[in-house]
Amino acid sequence: MNMKKLSIMLACIGAWSAVTAQTLPEGTPAQTNIPEADYPCVDASSRATFRLDAPEARNVQVDICGKKWPMTKNPDGVWSVTTDPLVVGFHYYFLLVDGVAVNDPASETFFGCGKMASGIEIPESPEAAAYYTYDQSVPHGQVRECHYYSSIEQKERRCFVYTPANYETDASRRYPVLYLQHGMGEDERGWSRQGKMADILDNQIAAGKCVPMIVVMDYGNCGYIHGARPGESREEFGASFTPILLEDIIPYIDKTFRTLTDRDNRAMAGLSWGGHQTFQTTLAHLDKFAYIGAFSGAIFLPPEADMRKVYNGVFADADAFNRKVHTLFIGMGSEENMGSRELSEKLSAIGIKNTYYESPGTHHEWLTWRRCLNEFLPLIFKSDK
Amino acid sequence: MNMKKLSIMLACIGAWSAVTAQTLPEGTPAQTNIPEADYPCVDASSRATFRLDAPEARNVQVDICGKKWPMTKNPDGVWSVTTDPLVVGFHYYFLLVDGVAVNDPASETFFGCGKMASGIEIPESPEAAAYYTYDQSVPHGQVRECHYYSSIEQKERRCFVYTPANYETDASRRYPVLYLQHGMGEDERGWSRQGKMADILDNQIAAGKCVPMIVVMDYGNCGYIHGARPGESREEFGASFTPILLEDIIPYIDKTFRTLTDRDNRAMAGLSWGGHQTFQTTLAHLDKFAYIGAFSGAIFLPPEADMRKVYNGVFADADAFNRKVHTLFIGMGSEENMGSRELSEKLSAIGIKNTYYESPGTHHEWLTWRRCLNEFLPLIFKSDK
Repeated sequence: MNMKKLSIMLACIGAWSAVTAQTLPEGTPAQTNIPEADYPCVDASSRATFRLDAPEARNVQVDICGKKWPMTKNPDGVWSVTTDPLVVGFHYYFLLVDGVAVNDPASETFFGCGKMASGIEIPESPEAAAYYTYDQSVPHGQVRECHYYSSIEQKERRCFVYTPANYETDASRRYPVLYLQHGMGEDERGWSRQGKMADILDNQIAAGKCVPMIVVMDYGNCGYIHGARPGESREEFGASFTPILLEDIIPYIDKTFRTLTDRDNRAMAGLSWGGHQTFQTTLAHLDKFAYIGAFSGAIFLPPEADMRKVYNGVFADADAFNRKVHTLFIGMGSEENMGSRELSEKLSAIGIKNTYYESPGTHHEWLTWRRCLNEFLPLIFKSDK
Repeated sequence: MNMKKLSIMLACIGAWSAVTAQTLPEGTPAQTNIPEADYPCVDASSRATFRLDAPEARNVQVDICGKKWPMTKNPDGVWSVTTDPLVVGFHYYFLLVDGVAVNDPASETFFGCGKMASGIEIPESPEAAAYYTYDQSVPHGQVRECHYYSSIEQKERRCFVYTPANYETDASRRYPVLYLQHGMGEDERGWSRQGKMADILDNQIAAGKCVPMIVVMDYGNCGYIHGARPGESREEFGASFTPILLEDIIPYIDKTFRTLTDRDNRAMAGLSWGGHQTFQTTLAHLDKFAYIGAFSGAIFLPPEADMRKVYNGVFADADAFNRKVHTLFIGMGSEENMGSRELSEKLSAIGIKNTYYESPGTHHEWLTWRRCLNEFLPLIFKSDK
């Protein structure tokens, strides 16, 4: 080994520093950190401590979902702050360095808020977190990155496809498919990274709680994350996803994977704006979908709306709707106000069967949506037809 | 649609702004930007223009692989700079905001330099870039994210596995496997993101240039990216990857995928530190590997070393080595000095057959390694045994 050359190379890539095996007085390094980053860390009371080496900066803050925590500088130029106890689950955050919102160099990054964001996981108890935690004793599926050509957009698109563990071992079996959408701030990576969907599916399938299924996660904003297309009204924003799903994505999935292709084996669900897109898509195409889920769905009907007339009157004949739609799931966090409970109640009032779930203590965030998925999965692809 | 609620939600997630369809005087938005970000952009002369809205910052620079470009502030508080022509290919970069190296909010992020980094692709001509560019007319493989349990590390590990397009359609066929390693600053995501390995494989397989194969990309630094483990010398840093590969990864891959498991169907290659690990691993286990590639390999032998004695004397009997190793590939960029040419010449001088490739005009960067992979692939799994 030529140590001089090695030193030069290491200096070039900036990846060499002393090994620190320090114990942290402020807690345990967050799961969402890059390898070997001690900070941010989280203590047993869900307080997070952030640090940033920024001797020349005049003002540094942590911005966690809009709440700002001023950091203070020590004599070495390292800024730090310990927050109050935070809500458990996954939060996006940024550091504000002299007014600029940037990522924490110590954090992994996650596409959220319309750009790459830092994220911090505030752990629940192991028991509460078990359903979305890797378990070495259960068989594991795979999340496959697939690229395909969209005839509508006339360009390459990307989706992620979860296949269950026995997809590999039973080469003749065909599977039902759940199309699972992110929110307006995220993209097709959200459910498998922030949402931990693969662990949720692996654990439920192993326990027999849900049936083995394929899950497809594609990009719902269709290249227009910041608003409507030119000439498109706000109400229509994202509406272009429906034809892409029906004409490009579903045919691609059914051609590429061993799917069951009838409506009784196709579900769609989404969070926030993805919930709105799920309603827009499925309620207009009940010949293609039999299970519907909206997690904190951005389904903002006017308070005076006649529920028998919205969505082209799909709810007017409750018996017919209930025969067709085997599961209509509406969920939300208890600390957000997306109107999901009212929506569920209005549908119940006109005889539309639906399941309402409220995640205790959570906001418009990923822990709400992990829990919603966990509640939704056992309800699909099992109905007596 | 209740516009008030929608507005509140949109304000919360910060993802709403006016649609701009502006034409850019400075060029075309970089491929590596997040959706809808106009800057950074690149002009026809490979000059890049960066922008950052930072009215309160006192000093903002762009740092591209160590070369710094000062930015200037306009009256609106937006900083910008246009660089000189840059080398084509993929470069990591950071913004220095009042001395703090942070990611550009307009860029995708890539794990490099030991943390999440911004990246900018400076395009080559379409002809030069064709081999690593998505082509809608060829069949596409998949890159699968797999999680498995390591008996050595006693924890969950993650790898990415490329399966060729016909892996899905020909359910009885078995495939040779290339184990492909990242460098010290990267992780197991590098080859499929920065390296564009799936497009390279798809294009070569479709053209009949390489044989269909499985490619496995795992994490070589084994949790110790910043240096040696406590008690481990610098020379040994990363050496713990060899037993993990042999005892955990290969058995997992051979159990999970339809692989060919003899040495004539197993290759290993890596870039920079991954090239060092490739030599360390394969030369000590020629019973398991028949093809070896080092791309800008960090193989720093002392100048006075007797090549017949290094690596436990594996090169001492050239005829025996040449019969066993069907391909020994050594590549490098013309603008870096990793000693690869000297290594190749020293091996040739003692009769060890090897292929040397030098990428014209490129440094210790991903375009060198894309080209190395492109040169290496046609040489493996085709030998007359």
